[in-house]
Amino acid sequence: MISKSQIKFIKSLQLKKYRKEEQCFVVDGEKGVEEVLKSDFKIEMLLVTESFRERKAKLWKDVNVDWLIVTEKQLAAVSSFQTNESVLAVVRQKPNQLPVLGQNEFILALDDIRDPGNLGTIIRTADWFGIRKIIASEQTADGYNPKVINSTMGSFTRVQLAYANLMDLIPQWEAPVYGTFMDGEDVHEKRFDKRGVIVIGNEANGISPAIQSLVTHRITIPGAVGAESLNAAVATGIVLDNWSRLKK
Amino acid sequence: MISKSQIKFIKSLQLKKYRKEEQCFVVDGEKGVEEVLKSDFKIEMLLVTESFRERKAKLWKDVNVDWLIVTEKQLAAVSSFQTNESVLAVVRQKPNQLPVLGQNEFILALDDIRDPGNLGTIIRTADWFGIRKIIASEQTADGYNPKVINSTMGSFTRVQLAYANLMDLIPQWEAPVYGTFMDGEDVHEKRFDKRGVIVIGNEANGISPAIQSLVTHRITIPGAVGAESLNAAVATGIVLDNWSRLKK
Repeated sequence: MISKSQIKFIKSLQLKKYRKEEQCFVVDGEKGVEEVLKSDFKIEMLLVTESFRERKAKLWKDVNVDWLIVTEKQLAAVSSFQTNESVLAVVRQKPNQLPVLGQNEFILALDDIRDPGNLGTIIRTADWFGIRKIIASEQTADGYNPKVINSTMGSFTRVQLAYANLMDLIPQWEAPVYGTFMDGEDVHEKRFDKRGVIVIGNEANGISPAIQSLVTHRITIPGAVGAESLNAAVATGIVLDNWSRLKK
Repeated sequence: MISKSQIKFIKSLQLKKYRKEEQCFVVDGEKGVEEVLKSDFKIEMLLVTESFRERKAKLWKDVNVDWLIVTEKQLAAVSSFQTNESVLAVVRQKPNQLPVLGQNEFILALDDIRDPGNLGTIIRTADWFGIRKIIASEQTADGYNPKVINSTMGSFTRVQLAYANLMDLIPQWEAPVYGTFMDGEDVHEKRFDKRGVIVIGNEANGISPAIQSLVTHRITIPGAVGAESLNAAVATGIVLDNWSRLKK
């Protein structure tokens, strides 16, 4: 049985303020929760419907957390999904740990990505290309927002996201800094270094003037005469695909 | 002055049923409406706030539509944006016209893209790369959904989107059909033909078995060991970027 105060607690995690206070966040649905179980994230509460428990009891028998059986109606009430008929986990946040940039490593730096869907998709895309660390400006959307978590499709368990003052942190790495602009070098021709930072700019304003001053390599995704810009997550995918050609 | 029935009419266009009945849709915000004004779409109603009118009256003086002055509160009430303090247009839909595939042309085919944000971003990405025609299965999200329109960033005015039975239409073009799979040919190595169709699969299920039977070239975006898949719009961007290398 789930109590009223537990329902209230889980619902409160929709808001950043309470996520910060409680240092917890919500993972909705089977796929996401399975990824959490494979990771070193710690589950605080696990809500499952009776039908999900019956279906998964054998496979999940080693899961070392009490299962709280809820009705589908109760699950829907606390879920951020429109439909979630299976499982929801309350998960403990990890401390915000500033990453180091390894010898043959690339890091993504997000300069005010505001849309949670874009942030989640960028994390998923980074994961696809083997980027394991992302730093984000303080104004970037909260990585524990349910929309971010959902759109990562589980990749938040494999990619470390840290919030930092980019102006302080990036110069410490003494590495090439790549950023996309309208007037940069064609990304198809560009040779990437073995180590570096790729900056992704804000959805409306691109890379801010301050961060621009850190960019050592201006690159451009060549386009036709049409749209004025690409979506931030799409641009990230294209830059990383061009970067990944290096590694063959 | 805007009447209660006008407010009701505009609000009703949030729903596909009424958009279809009325053959109209809503474009929110200055950027989108400016793109409509540059296009051959026909504006039926133009709602502007007093401050927007004062700011834009000179620039927009040739706009051949009556301006309906509304308060910011009234505009917010009919807008699909959380904030829209400037302008909203009710625009006439275009008839669903099946495209032909030209001699040196590529078309995108969407096999059940369900998320409006993804559909809008795909239209914007197609526009960036100079793709002018998209066909979509009947189960694909409605291209006149306000979320689609917003996320195209105006590209809906330059890219023709038509709904069709893909199984009937694609074979008629007698062209190579490219689709992304986990086991296809590396898209970095692939040579694209001068004419063809690129199929983008559903967010959860990829390309359906029926449409798979039409695919003549299976391609893959190489990734690391991480995410199981890419977001549909991101994958579209990467495939089109690789395709665009041809055209240099």
